[in-house]
Amino acid sequence: MSGKKWVFLYSEVDQVEAYCGKDWDKVRGLLGGKGANLADMARIGLPVPPGFTITTEACNAYQPTKTFPEHMWDQSLAALHAIEAQTGKKFGDPTNPLLVSCRSGAKFSMPGMMDTVLNIGLTDKTVEGMVKLTNNERFAYDSYRRLIQMFGAVVLEIRDEAFEDVLDEFKKEKGVKLDTELNAEDLKALTSKFKAVVRAEKGFDFPQDPLDQLRLAIEAVFKSWNGKRAVDYRRATNIPDDLGTAVNIVTMVFGNMGSDSGTGVAFTRDPQTGEAVVFGEYLINAQGEDVVAGIRNTEKIVNLGNEIPEAYKQFMGICKTLENHYRDMQDVEFTIERGRLWMLQTRNGKRSARSAVKIAVDMANEGLISKEEAVLRVTPEQVDTLLHPQFDSATKKDAKKAGFFYASGVNASPGAAVGQVYFDADTAERMAKESKQEVIMVRPFTKPDDVHGMLAAKGILTSEGGATSHAAVVARQFGVPCVVGASMVHIDLEKRQMDVDGKVVKEGEWISVDGTTGEVFLGKLNLTVPKVEEQTDLLTLLTWADEICANPTIRKVTSGLTRGLQVWANADYPKDARRARSYGAVGIGLCRTEHMFFEPERLPSVQRMILAKTAEERVSALDDLLPYQRSDFEGLFEAMDGYPVIIRLIDPPLHEFMPSGEALLEEVITMRVKGIKEGLEEKEHMLAAVQALHESNPMMGLRGIRLSIVMPEIVEMQVRAIFEAAANVTLKGVHAKPEVMIPLTGHVNELKHIQPKLERIAKAVMAEKGVSFPYKFGTMIEIPRAALTAPEIATVAEFFSFGTNDLTQMTFGYSRDDAERNFLVKYVEDGILPKNPFQQIDRDGVGRLMRMAVEEGRSVRPELEVGICGEHGGEPSSIEFCHMIGQNYVSCSPFRVPIARLAAAHAAIKHQPK
Amino acid sequence: MSGKKWVFLYSEVDQVEAYCGKDWDKVRGLLGGKGANLADMARIGLPVPPGFTITTEACNAYQPTKTFPEHMWDQSLAALHAIEAQTGKKFGDPTNPLLVSCRSGAKFSMPGMMDTVLNIGLTDKTVEGMVKLTNNERFAYDSYRRLIQMFGAVVLEIRDEAFEDVLDEFKKEKGVKLDTELNAEDLKALTSKFKAVVRAEKGFDFPQDPLDQLRLAIEAVFKSWNGKRAVDYRRATNIPDDLGTAVNIVTMVFGNMGSDSGTGVAFTRDPQTGEAVVFGEYLINAQGEDVVAGIRNTEKIVNLGNEIPEAYKQFMGICKTLENHYRDMQDVEFTIERGRLWMLQTRNGKRSARSAVKIAVDMANEGLISKEEAVLRVTPEQVDTLLHPQFDSATKKDAKKAGFFYASGVNASPGAAVGQVYFDADTAERMAKESKQEVIMVRPFTKPDDVHGMLAAKGILTSEGGATSHAAVVARQFGVPCVVGASMVHIDLEKRQMDVDGKVVKEGEWISVDGTTGEVFLGKLNLTVPKVEEQTDLLTLLTWADEICANPTIRKVTSGLTRGLQVWANADYPKDARRARSYGAVGIGLCRTEHMFFEPERLPSVQRMILAKTAEERVSALDDLLPYQRSDFEGLFEAMDGYPVIIRLIDPPLHEFMPSGEALLEEVITMRVKGIKEGLEEKEHMLAAVQALHESNPMMGLRGIRLSIVMPEIVEMQVRAIFEAAANVTLKGVHAKPEVMIPLTGHVNELKHIQPKLERIAKAVMAEKGVSFPYKFGTMIEIPRAALTAPEIATVAEFFSFGTNDLTQMTFGYSRDDAERNFLVKYVEDGILPKNPFQQIDRDGVGRLMRMAVEEGRSVRPELEVGICGEHGGEPSSIEFCHMIGQNYVSCSPFRVPIARLAAAHAAIKHQPK
Repeated sequence: MSGKKWVFLYSEVDQVEAYCGKDWDKVRGLLGGKGANLADMARIGLPVPPGFTITTEACNAYQPTKTFPEHMWDQSLAALHAIEAQTGKKFGDPTNPLLVSCRSGAKFSMPGMMDTVLNIGLTDKTVEGMVKLTNNERFAYDSYRRLIQMFGAVVLEIRDEAFEDVLDEFKKEKGVKLDTELNAEDLKALTSKFKAVVRAEKGFDFPQDPLDQLRLAIEAVFKSWNGKRAVDYRRATNIPDDLGTAVNIVTMVFGNMGSDSGTGVAFTRDPQTGEAVVFGEYLINAQGEDVVAGIRNTEKIVNLGNEIPEAYKQFMGICKTLENHYRDMQDVEFTIERGRLWMLQTRNGKRSARSAVKIAVDMANEGLISKEEAVLRVTPEQVDTLLHPQFDSATKKDAKKAGFFYASGVNASPGAAVGQVYFDADTAERMAKESKQEVIMVRPFTKPDDVHGMLAAKGILTSEGGATSHAAVVARQFGVPCVVGASMVHIDLEKRQMDVDGKVVKEGEWISVDGTTGEVFLGKLNLTVPKVEEQTDLLTLLTWADEICANPTIRKVTSGLTRGLQVWANADYPKDARRARSYGAVGIGLCRTEHMFFEPERLPSVQRMILAKTAEERVSALDDLLPYQRSDFEGLFEAMDGYPVIIRLIDPPLHEFMPSGEALLEEVITMRVKGIKEGLEEKEHMLAAVQALHESNPMMGLRGIRLSIVMPEIVEMQVRAIFEAAANVTLKGVHAKPEVMIPLTGHVNELKHIQPKLERIAKAVMAEKGVSFPYKFGTMIEIPRAALTAPEIATVAEFFSFGTNDLTQMTFGYSRDDAERNFLVKYVEDGILPKNPFQQIDRDGVGRLMRMAVEEGRSVRPELEVGICGEHGGEPSSIEFCHMIGQNYVSCSPFRVPIARLAAAHAAIKHQPK
Repeated sequence: MSGKKWVFLYSEVDQVEAYCGKDWDKVRGLLGGKGANLADMARIGLPVPPGFTITTEACNAYQPTKTFPEHMWDQSLAALHAIEAQTGKKFGDPTNPLLVSCRSGAKFSMPGMMDTVLNIGLTDKTVEGMVKLTNNERFAYDSYRRLIQMFGAVVLEIRDEAFEDVLDEFKKEKGVKLDTELNAEDLKALTSKFKAVVRAEKGFDFPQDPLDQLRLAIEAVFKSWNGKRAVDYRRATNIPDDLGTAVNIVTMVFGNMGSDSGTGVAFTRDPQTGEAVVFGEYLINAQGEDVVAGIRNTEKIVNLGNEIPEAYKQFMGICKTLENHYRDMQDVEFTIERGRLWMLQTRNGKRSARSAVKIAVDMANEGLISKEEAVLRVTPEQVDTLLHPQFDSATKKDAKKAGFFYASGVNASPGAAVGQVYFDADTAERMAKESKQEVIMVRPFTKPDDVHGMLAAKGILTSEGGATSHAAVVARQFGVPCVVGASMVHIDLEKRQMDVDGKVVKEGEWISVDGTTGEVFLGKLNLTVPKVEEQTDLLTLLTWADEICANPTIRKVTSGLTRGLQVWANADYPKDARRARSYGAVGIGLCRTEHMFFEPERLPSVQRMILAKTAEERVSALDDLLPYQRSDFEGLFEAMDGYPVIIRLIDPPLHEFMPSGEALLEEVITMRVKGIKEGLEEKEHMLAAVQALHESNPMMGLRGIRLSIVMPEIVEMQVRAIFEAAANVTLKGVHAKPEVMIPLTGHVNELKHIQPKLERIAKAVMAEKGVSFPYKFGTMIEIPRAALTAPEIATVAEFFSFGTNDLTQMTFGYSRDDAERNFLVKYVEDGILPKNPFQQIDRDGVGRLMRMAVEEGRSVRPELEVGICGEHGGEPSSIEFCHMIGQNYVSCSPFRVPIARLAAAHAAIKHQPK
């Protein structure tokens, strides 16, 4: 025997490591996850049933010609002989037969996607040996008929019904309902019937040579790698096709050999709570599938200590050993055969978000893992889950069973909410504020002047729009659970009701909205409300995350960077800023001044400003707004004492502050047709103003810096308000650090035109007030041209903040108001786009512009501060990218600050210098 | 005397050349244009009055301290002595005085911006010498009083009125109206009065030392370089401030010394027609300003041969010499003083477009210049002028005097048109077709379904929109003269009239529209209509341009380029293609298939397709359209036999094919309010469909490849139509070369999703028809992301065509529908943007993306064909940029093909390898 090694015994780990250079990622690639872990357990002396693995390389070599590669079969036979030696049994020996299982095992778990055959080695002869050996005829024939059925289906590709029909017929004949009611004699008869099925279906007999069984089973596993199920699964999960599967041939052990036998599954810590106790269940005298099937009531693992104390003690020790070895909580399977414990599987255990945090922190405190590892053990999504009220899955299951499921849409903002339905913002707000109701606001879609209702609501539901629609963006920003685009919901605003297939919900009725999953239920579901400040483990973990980010040996030092990636927050109001700070934000990356314009007592002044016919009228209206803005900013600076606060000057087009043109048009036409004169002229005047402001593509229209150049009075007022506010709080001892952000710059000359004027106002205010404090003027980078000409823009701007929402819109040419509804969902579903670029930064396109802007901007201004304030600032993959290109901070919704802190630490660790 | 040389005699050209290394651009920089040309004429032996130039370097050295640089005055005096030696006269000599002029002369002509003083050297003493010498007291004193006035104003900065008031008073006293009516005695008296003015205004006497006069005059010229007028002029014309002006001191010669004296101006060829005859006028016994002032009737130059034959003969010879020397048509000034000819100035003559072409072609044919030079002598704008009907400037002047000027707007599409006003497309088309009227279509703005009216019209006027509005783009495309955004015009569609400040034009009345200048006139102005095919010189020039472009030694060879920049055309219909071909296009770079959808007999099928509820209904509607499209394409392929034809698949959003939502809404509301039931449901259904198609930003919405992915049936029909058409004409012996262009690609996966399906249809059709022909599939690059990911896109696309309209929109984030109106005009006016980026490619931003796309696209597909089909394809600066980045072709409106051919040649010459 010579040539390549295709087969490794579990006892040959040294050879495996020689082959793979001790790289266990490679080992898993070669032996598959299951094989690698079994071999690994064997290596550290744990009781693993003797067995061997046929490598993924053999699988790949098999595929082109559908023949085993040279020497693979020889090597397999040699390994089989080694097992025989280890077990003292012989494959095909009628007196002491060795039985084996043949299981697939790829590098990445593909549960249920590929094939398994158990009890290989049973034949008409060896089954009798088993009967004698076990003194259990029923067990032996049950095993045999299972082999025939499994082998028939998996290896011989006989359709399942062929066996099921015979079984059903036989049970009817015997007058029984369950397989377990069949006795030994019945099973023996059934075995014969199954053999007959094979003969009838295939024209040959069930193979009586155990080696034939083994060979065919191995081939079947190889073939199953390219079965439709497996290929589809790999497509969906991005597992490469060329990995191949390994095949594990393992000695069968049986937990159903009497009261000194048993089988169980366990987690080495509690997967729900994270508590450091072994958590599991077992059954005496049973097989693995009995535990899973739930036919018999399982026992808690602790009771095993009473029933088979030796094995229990050994098992508890093994749990400890495995945790120490794998340095993580394990999910294990075991079988006790006649008092002897066998470990059949170990793998890192799945766990709840809460458990993940506790285990990570505990293990770090126990010294089992480092703080970096602890941080890596928790995903940002898990942190997200911990921050929002939830319906637990049992509650939802029950609700569905009871017929309370109502609709589903896009899970736009996580968390659960229960409330009474109201169909407009004013009513929603009134009901919430005056009647103290829990409100769910339901609209076809939302607009900026709906925000007061959205803020008053516990949850939001829309029938239109996608994950970056106005409703979704605002909801995420303010942490309001939200489902959007639930298109099966028909909202009748006139009748004040909604309807799904005739199920009508009237205004004031209760619904429950799960923004984490996109589900909507009728009635009131029970809520679980987490409190961040009480989640001490989470707080500990986030502190570690911050330490990692701030660690200069972990962050690669690039031009202009003197510290790690920080997490700032987007906040428009002092209360948001306070929340952000309490969640760990160390700056405000975006305060949207225009949100303040929408407040009911201010909007009339704003509209007066817009309708002004002269600069004087406009300035007078703005003078009314200045005190409001100043006091908003004072609150912000106080809340963020000592931290930078970036305030963006007015961004949206003016028409957003005006009533809807279509509604006005409808009113005017109606009045004209009906001949109503009174008030008509006023309405017509307003309509004319709205129509004059109309733009074909407002996203690309007169807004941001363009508006400020055409109508500088607004931003002049805003800058005065910012600096007066900063001066006032400075005089009170607050450390204000205002940074004025100019939106929508596309050409450096725009900044050159406006920024010096604004800086003069800033200096004038400081002189008037006799104080000084640090400040900056900078710009958003949200127009592709700004990124393309960053070196020029950086000569004027002291900081860049990526507005990745607009940058994505313009780089792709997608209008976020329409794209998801019209084609983007389809694009992602069909794989045309790997991800929705409004959720995750498109690194190749938008990201390329960002990287250019950072690198080229710093080439002229090395200390250039660069951040991001788009939606992406709270999304882990995007945060990683921001780290990679050397940004100073990410800024996100206050509610996502903890997630961002963790994601930033992940990025820092992943990309730390080697 | 030592140190730097500040002063050069005209007779010292050798020293000048030694100083400047024979680089005449440097010479002009040092001596100014006037000084350089005078010195140059002196060098080639032409009779130039002795004189010298004080250099621009001296001017620059003077500015900081306002003192002459060391030795400059000494060198000037030495030069003056040299002149004295040359003329035999002496400066300040009472018996034979030398008089000189002192004139500014910068590198670039700045007419009227800086100062001149004539007759320097006249004093109370020398004036008497002049009287004796000329025997003409009136002349001598007239010269003297002019010196005092000019010196007073220019050098002493006495306000003009101080002299004018005295002169007016004096004339009143003498009872005369014109200066020329004053006799010698009067002028002598006036001279005294002027001297008194100087004394009164300045407190000192007019300087009687000629050297003081000279010194002060030189200083005045130096100072005038930084005078407000000159600085403003330089700002406006982008002349750098640091060039400085030279000062020319030239011996005065006088054409008013009797019948053997005279003065004149001439062009060496006819500046209107280009005919190769000297064209000019002169006056006997007169000064230069008399010719210009037009007080006396000038004589044609040919008559000079009868009056002063020697000088005339000499002059004609000099004209020839100058043309040979400067290798261009010259604009010259001369004076004959007592039979002796003096050349006072020569410069390249301004000329009409027609003349420019003829002169260039003639001179090349004469062997005077090369073909490359001939091509460079004509600007693309001149070619443009030659292609469109025009109003001549005299006609317009008269019309303005007569009060026929009506309004002005943006000059959106060049050429002039006269017609009767109609206010909607249907009426305009009907009046043009049925009533055979000349029509000017007037609308507030236009939309795609107005195109039939626009095509039927002779001219278009809109009150809204900018240079890239729909009206402007369509008008340029089809060569219809067009003025847009004439915002003072109030159009009342109900009353069927328009109104500017009460001047009402009713439907059917005549107006005249000048799309070249943006002017609108009441009534019918006379039109001048050029015919391209008759302009043989132009055709010759364009042929030379093509030869230059195709010359491989002139075009820098870069990856993927095997030929020069070609000119293709955008054409939707066979007749456009034929015109394009006759104008020299060698391909169709853009056929917009959707224009065909708007034709009245097709639109119902298109709407049926849009309203279809099932794929079957949609396919059935499309089946109706297929024959139309196929026959359109057959015509195109036939017209372009042998040349590539790029057909773009459907691009616009579907709502463009539907009626206006606002109008429908108005109808529906009116019907509801009035209780009209009949037809309401149908209208409501249509309104619902239109509203469902509504998008917030349609430019960035469901269109182009996105629409094709969501609704593939349309493009499948189109590709079938294209290939059936190509197959049909191929069978008839035509060489069809279809190239299918997919618009709006942003991600390579979009192409991967759709292109293979379409290629399968193409192959299927060829198989069905049993023919084959070359074809390509490619994409527009009009989304920034497409440019940023060009290497990926080039793996699928066989050609790129830059859609620079959309690429500019998205790179800048400007909606072309609104930007010009809202801020873009202001941006350009205020210098925030150097040019309107929709007219001229923004090289730094949009151009950077284009360059990346070409270079990186060719890195994976070296033979990648790259062109441009946006508006910019017909704009000279943009064409130059397309050449620079290595594109294969530009494609533009058929009417701009000749312009583009010339511009392409200019680019090739300008950037040819050194």
